[in-house]
Amino acid sequence: MSDDKKLARASLDSLYRIFTVPEAPDSTLGRIDQSLSQDLAGFLQQHIVASERDLADIESDFDSAAIPEHPTFVSEQIQFVMDKLVAQSVHISAPSFVGHMASALPYFMLPLSRIMMALNQNLVKVETSKAFTPMERQVVGMIHKLVYDNDEAFYEHWMHDRAHALGSFCSGGTIANLTALWAARNNALPPGGDFRGLGQDGLLAGMQHHGYQGLAILVSERGHYSLGKAADILGIGRRSLIAIPTDNRNKVRTDLLASKCDELKRQNIRVMAIVGIAGASETGSVDPLDTMADIAAERGIHFHVDSAWGGPTLFSSTHRHLLKGIERADSVTLDAHKQLYVPMGAGIAVFRDPKTLTSVEHHAEYIIRKGSKDLGSHTVEGSRPGMAILVHSGLHIIGRQGYELLIDQGIEKARAFAQMIRESDDFELVSEPELNILTYRYVPADIAQALAQAPESLQRAVNEELNKATKRIQKIQRGLGKSFVSRTRLNPALYDGDDIIVFRAVLANPLTNTEILSDLLEEQRQIAATRDDVKTILGLARACFRSC
Amino acid sequence: MSDDKKLARASLDSLYRIFTVPEAPDSTLGRIDQSLSQDLAGFLQQHIVASERDLADIESDFDSAAIPEHPTFVSEQIQFVMDKLVAQSVHISAPSFVGHMASALPYFMLPLSRIMMALNQNLVKVETSKAFTPMERQVVGMIHKLVYDNDEAFYEHWMHDRAHALGSFCSGGTIANLTALWAARNNALPPGGDFRGLGQDGLLAGMQHHGYQGLAILVSERGHYSLGKAADILGIGRRSLIAIPTDNRNKVRTDLLASKCDELKRQNIRVMAIVGIAGASETGSVDPLDTMADIAAERGIHFHVDSAWGGPTLFSSTHRHLLKGIERADSVTLDAHKQLYVPMGAGIAVFRDPKTLTSVEHHAEYIIRKGSKDLGSHTVEGSRPGMAILVHSGLHIIGRQGYELLIDQGIEKARAFAQMIRESDDFELVSEPELNILTYRYVPADIAQALAQAPESLQRAVNEELNKATKRIQKIQRGLGKSFVSRTRLNPALYDGDDIIVFRAVLANPLTNTEILSDLLEEQRQIAATRDDVKTILGLARACFRSC
Repeated sequence: MSDDKKLARASLDSLYRIFTVPEAPDSTLGRIDQSLSQDLAGFLQQHIVASERDLADIESDFDSAAIPEHPTFVSEQIQFVMDKLVAQSVHISAPSFVGHMASALPYFMLPLSRIMMALNQNLVKVETSKAFTPMERQVVGMIHKLVYDNDEAFYEHWMHDRAHALGSFCSGGTIANLTALWAARNNALPPGGDFRGLGQDGLLAGMQHHGYQGLAILVSERGHYSLGKAADILGIGRRSLIAIPTDNRNKVRTDLLASKCDELKRQNIRVMAIVGIAGASETGSVDPLDTMADIAAERGIHFHVDSAWGGPTLFSSTHRHLLKGIERADSVTLDAHKQLYVPMGAGIAVFRDPKTLTSVEHHAEYIIRKGSKDLGSHTVEGSRPGMAILVHSGLHIIGRQGYELLIDQGIEKARAFAQMIRESDDFELVSEPELNILTYRYVPADIAQALAQAPESLQRAVNEELNKATKRIQKIQRGLGKSFVSRTRLNPALYDGDDIIVFRAVLANPLTNTEILSDLLEEQRQIAATRDDVKTILGLARACFRSC
Repeated sequence: MSDDKKLARASLDSLYRIFTVPEAPDSTLGRIDQSLSQDLAGFLQQHIVASERDLADIESDFDSAAIPEHPTFVSEQIQFVMDKLVAQSVHISAPSFVGHMASALPYFMLPLSRIMMALNQNLVKVETSKAFTPMERQVVGMIHKLVYDNDEAFYEHWMHDRAHALGSFCSGGTIANLTALWAARNNALPPGGDFRGLGQDGLLAGMQHHGYQGLAILVSERGHYSLGKAADILGIGRRSLIAIPTDNRNKVRTDLLASKCDELKRQNIRVMAIVGIAGASETGSVDPLDTMADIAAERGIHFHVDSAWGGPTLFSSTHRHLLKGIERADSVTLDAHKQLYVPMGAGIAVFRDPKTLTSVEHHAEYIIRKGSKDLGSHTVEGSRPGMAILVHSGLHIIGRQGYELLIDQGIEKARAFAQMIRESDDFELVSEPELNILTYRYVPADIAQALAQAPESLQRAVNEELNKATKRIQKIQRGLGKSFVSRTRLNPALYDGDDIIVFRAVLANPLTNTEILSDLLEEQRQIAATRDDVKTILGLARACFRSC
């Protein structure tokens, strides 16, 4: 039997070999391993979608739930993976893929990921991670410092503290937000008298003890969907996540936020958290964090900032002022797999006060024992990989200056793209890029002109047609596989809160340039001009004006 | 500047290069990449801990929270990683590391992990994953079939269904348990009348609408600590996770389980879930799942099985009968990063009824839109990596027969180890290995003999000394770095429920053999015989008898 390690005649002997690192680099497995690196290198420089097979067709490659009885050769499976998965995946690292929060990765992340995978440390406890535990604590400390910038003595005291955590490293922003809101909820209903705390006695007992009629979380209508999910999971209910309207720059209306807080207080509903956004998923906008911090502080409310996207703006001397007030937040979410440029999935929640996470602390007999330095005592997740090694490496190899360049070039590129859209006579900028995200739509000059002068009810009818056109153009462009923008639905003040479907562009990939962006617009223009379905829709929009 | 890509004079130009795949395999970065593979291969075959530096000392390498201002050479950072992290990590893949749920990995996982990392797909939505979405759905379907074994038509109908999910792929068992209990909680308080469901209106409104005094989750005292955490997060409270006593084989007492259900019902407390365990973390024991399924079915209670560890026992024709009844569970947790032998972190929750997860379904405007096939609409997490590719590959390359061998050899090895302990005159087996986990402790023959005849109060005093000895021996052996068993605290019927600290051995690594296990016992014996602190403790245990 070759060392391709087929288990066809499955035996213990062949099984042992499959678990052993091949010593000869020219063994079959060694060769597969090396050639893969080169294939991938070439592959990653191609287009966004290598083939135009549609999803239903691709599903036929993955249609059996039967677990194969007999083992397959490694080389066969790798071939399947290359043909059926790699070739049918989305090249989110392509410079023309500007539709989601994705980017090319620094190449050094690959060998480092391999180290991480090979060591397979489990960060739930020191016994299965050793140096990875202090390393992750340092990474959490560094992000804490990026946000709160405390002095050296603070970190010397707390960073490796046995009983406390400056934050919680996790698989992504959703879990980071959940962690922060979990702690906020438990702290909002503290123990006292017969009540042993929400963690022990539950929500119902906590409400009764404190005499509240309900709990609420307040965030702008641009809040990430993970907050609604957290409200559901935490037992608050999605309807207690209250959406505060935004101004014409997609920032929360702080006057309405403050008055809602006071209204809820009169109703005896405890606001357990106010959530500020630093880099909204849809528009990249940043809330007025400093004013929000005032509102929260005056009322003794936990202030959480979701900077999953925008947090790394703090690296930039030019732009960090946009996040002014974040340093007053009780907790902050930041995604490393977004603008720290590490692979999926790495998120972090940091807490200003090292004691905040105490309300969610937990222990077990065989791991995360009291008094241990095990990280698992303050996390939503249990067993976790050592992803922090990639963040540690990014922070060192790229450094603050490198991240500053990355942030600055993204914002500049977004502004250049916005200018391109503004200067065109057939595109309309719907939201300005405060950071590196903008939204826009295709509106031919004649329609734009007529729309500006039309009465409100007519505007609505025309916008409905334009929404259909935007949706079609986005789908067609995605299908062509050359460029990709995403789409979403906004209610901009510009159209009196009408639902407007927009293209959404995220300019985070340093390999994207203005030529690529110009080509992207040109392709959308071409789709609008040549595709019959889009032409029909635009014709219907024009007909709206005539029928008046 | 070399292609080592230092950003020392950080410039946009050097930044672009760092994000580009090196074309020449003999470039500096290409060479680093290749030599790392070989270094790692050698490294992974060494001892458990490469150095005996203690944690406080290691922390000094990770003591600064300052983010480096200037970029570092890739080669410098890799050297740091090799010296300070790799060399100080725990070799959980070593055959003598039998203390936690860890193992060597099949080597093919490494090149496949590289593909996964390089593609960096995000499985929250089809737009950033394409073929990875149907692939993950297939993997979930395969695990569903392993557990529930429905017919082909069932999977043809449901596996790729737009609006439903057969399960939820996630970062690990903790999130899988949380997902299952989240759905169970929401389904326990269904919408009706003015009540729009727990997800919308929250726990308080749900309890009021249904007129319950409380909610409860029932599990044996061997339940995993993630269940307590889930009870906290979900707002039920840890005290509503009710621990049912176990029999002398560490299985839940189903008589007590049934009577507790009925008692709670009389108190108007709704049992939202009964949790069965298939492979308890501490003892590897399996609950009588079939009887539990009866109890749950008779009372209309959600039955969840936590088979994070034991699930893959279903691959074994010889041992799958132990899990009889799991196919009647409403939801089942299984960890792929445990006995499917993939790296951290990959867990799955599967649901018998494809409609169970509907109660936690959620959507957003820019992703996971209604009607899309986006996986993110039924998961606790948001953005997620394509770990399912590793499970898909394991299931194909190893196959059912391969996994059967892995399971069988683990159970046989555990039995052989148990026999070795039974035959020795200085070790005591505390829990028999039903699967591949056992617990034991060091009790010299003279103490064992005296203990057997001692009255209860004296037994307790002696056991307290023996507990100290077990704890010391475990710590010393861990520090020596040759072998590793973990320790936990049990209350076996053997000692009338006294707290007994035990060594815990998990026999899952196929490279572990009986010689290694024999050496491990011999080392513990030597520690007990030669270390003064252990000798002193054992002396105190002996003194207890004399002082009577």
